[in-house]
Amino acid sequence: MDSTELVDRLLRGERRALARLLTRVEDGSVDTLREVVRLLHPHTGNAMIVGLTGSPGVGKSTLTSALVTQWRSQGKRVAVLAVDPSSPFSGGALLGDRVRMQDHALDDGVFIRSMASRGHLGGLSWATPQALLVLDAAGFDIVMVETVGVGQAEVEIASSADTTVVALAPGMGDSIQAAKAGILEIADVFVVNKADRDGAERAVRELREMQKLGHGEWLAPIRKTVASTGDGIAELAEAIGEHYAWLTEEGRLDRRRLDRARVQVRELALGTVRGRFLELGQGDLVDELAAAVAARDTDPYTASDKLVASLDA
Amino acid sequence: MDSTELVDRLLRGERRALARLLTRVEDGSVDTLREVVRLLHPHTGNAMIVGLTGSPGVGKSTLTSALVTQWRSQGKRVAVLAVDPSSPFSGGALLGDRVRMQDHALDDGVFIRSMASRGHLGGLSWATPQALLVLDAAGFDIVMVETVGVGQAEVEIASSADTTVVALAPGMGDSIQAAKAGILEIADVFVVNKADRDGAERAVRELREMQKLGHGEWLAPIRKTVASTGDGIAELAEAIGEHYAWLTEEGRLDRRRLDRARVQVRELALGTVRGRFLELGQGDLVDELAAAVAARDTDPYTASDKLVASLDA
Repeated sequence: MDSTELVDRLLRGERRALARLLTRVEDGSVDTLREVVRLLHPHTGNAMIVGLTGSPGVGKSTLTSALVTQWRSQGKRVAVLAVDPSSPFSGGALLGDRVRMQDHALDDGVFIRSMASRGHLGGLSWATPQALLVLDAAGFDIVMVETVGVGQAEVEIASSADTTVVALAPGMGDSIQAAKAGILEIADVFVVNKADRDGAERAVRELREMQKLGHGEWLAPIRKTVASTGDGIAELAEAIGEHYAWLTEEGRLDRRRLDRARVQVRELALGTVRGRFLELGQGDLVDELAAAVAARDTDPYTASDKLVASLDA
Repeated sequence: MDSTELVDRLLRGERRALARLLTRVEDGSVDTLREVVRLLHPHTGNAMIVGLTGSPGVGKSTLTSALVTQWRSQGKRVAVLAVDPSSPFSGGALLGDRVRMQDHALDDGVFIRSMASRGHLGGLSWATPQALLVLDAAGFDIVMVETVGVGQAEVEIASSADTTVVALAPGMGDSIQAAKAGILEIADVFVVNKADRDGAERAVRELREMQKLGHGEWLAPIRKTVASTGDGIAELAEAIGEHYAWLTEEGRLDRRRLDRARVQVRELALGTVRGRFLELGQGDLVDELAAAVAARDTDPYTASDKLVASLDA
């Protein structure tokens, strides 16, 4: 079936078309991606995109599942994109986590998809923004992107999401590390999960202390949850909704999405250029230049100038 | 003082020239970086570059300090580059860690420098490869790069180092997470630090189990240490040395450094192109394209094609 037909079916609400388009986006060539994005793009921009990130072990899957239940009780249609930072050695490691999501397996208003992150270590898959477009065009009210928060990933999730939730748990040294990893800057909402454990109050206090040192226009609220029992989930969902409401005031969301479009256009363009370099890389020039650098016959900057010059030629 | 003079003094062993060149590399313009790299590059390639990475809390600073002591006892000159993933809110957070390194403050054969990672969240500073060149040219036998292992950072450290040590600690769920974060692929040596705590044997066992699922040409040895007492440090240093010895056999180190030069040349060239896009970004074209994407008048791919076309023009 060609992509035009699949997109038509997606817009008519066919669930199988949704799954097939995601597979196409995930496995397809750049040409396929281009075509799908071109077809979908006019039908997007309606979903609230919520990012959820945090260190391994804070209970992100359980939080996601509990939030889905909460939003479903309000009649919202919810899609979840769980990005697995898999490696060749751990492809199936997160399957267990996903099993919990089976709570929602029979609910038509919920769609859950795991994606591998494909050599983009700890980060979002290169196909994530495109997959978000598919889910947005499919008419979900809320699209969640869940990913392990390791460095680069948070930055990328924050650049894809409207509202970014950073999850922590007591006693993991997370709150103190939060600042180190730079997540303070990207969190729109903090959640201290497993709040029935020792140290929850301390984690909240440490976050508050750090926020005192400086924050932007929006002061990220801090919520406590026990996702496994559902405690605090309604309040967390409310905080997410409040941030989104704030975003839509005074054109903030439009500005944020404009910024995102700027970055996206630039990154895609860079990707094209990178592709050209990789093609060159299979040729002789990069090899030749690298050999000269390794042999100390030239330095890396001079070599890179020659490479750029070859692109312009 | 101009860079030529500073480099001359560096090569004569002047410590102040070393500190000043590092500052110049860290704070300087691209033109300064280019000049310094051009001058230094012919004098590099002699140091063994050891990367040390791991999650927050595994005791990387203590491990580094203990390794320095060990190598000094063998008469080796050692430099340490500690890359701090600082954010505007946590600039000084790691100072405490650094204080421990003061053990070596009066030792002329040791040089320690902290670098901020500068908006390159959790990753290596953009100036790290250049700083490594300075330390290499300064004649240190061993140059260590220590960084918090969060996602992207490990990949970058592995691409800068000859031998990469991945540190874990018992009971942090680290070993299981190791595979998830993809560090198995980049570790040349594993160290389970704080091995006097419960769970050390289990961490070792889990790593071994994971290694059974597959590994490359080199099977990364696993060492246990209690860095605070020095236990196991000699064995860790030996394992690092064995990996380096293996690398130097059959031209492996040369091939690795050639690969690194290839990546470096390509990345620097991409950086130049990125710089051009950023210049463009201040102009009208990117804004115009981003607005059209945000308004759904065009899609991101079509917009990026126009941007690339503007570069070729």
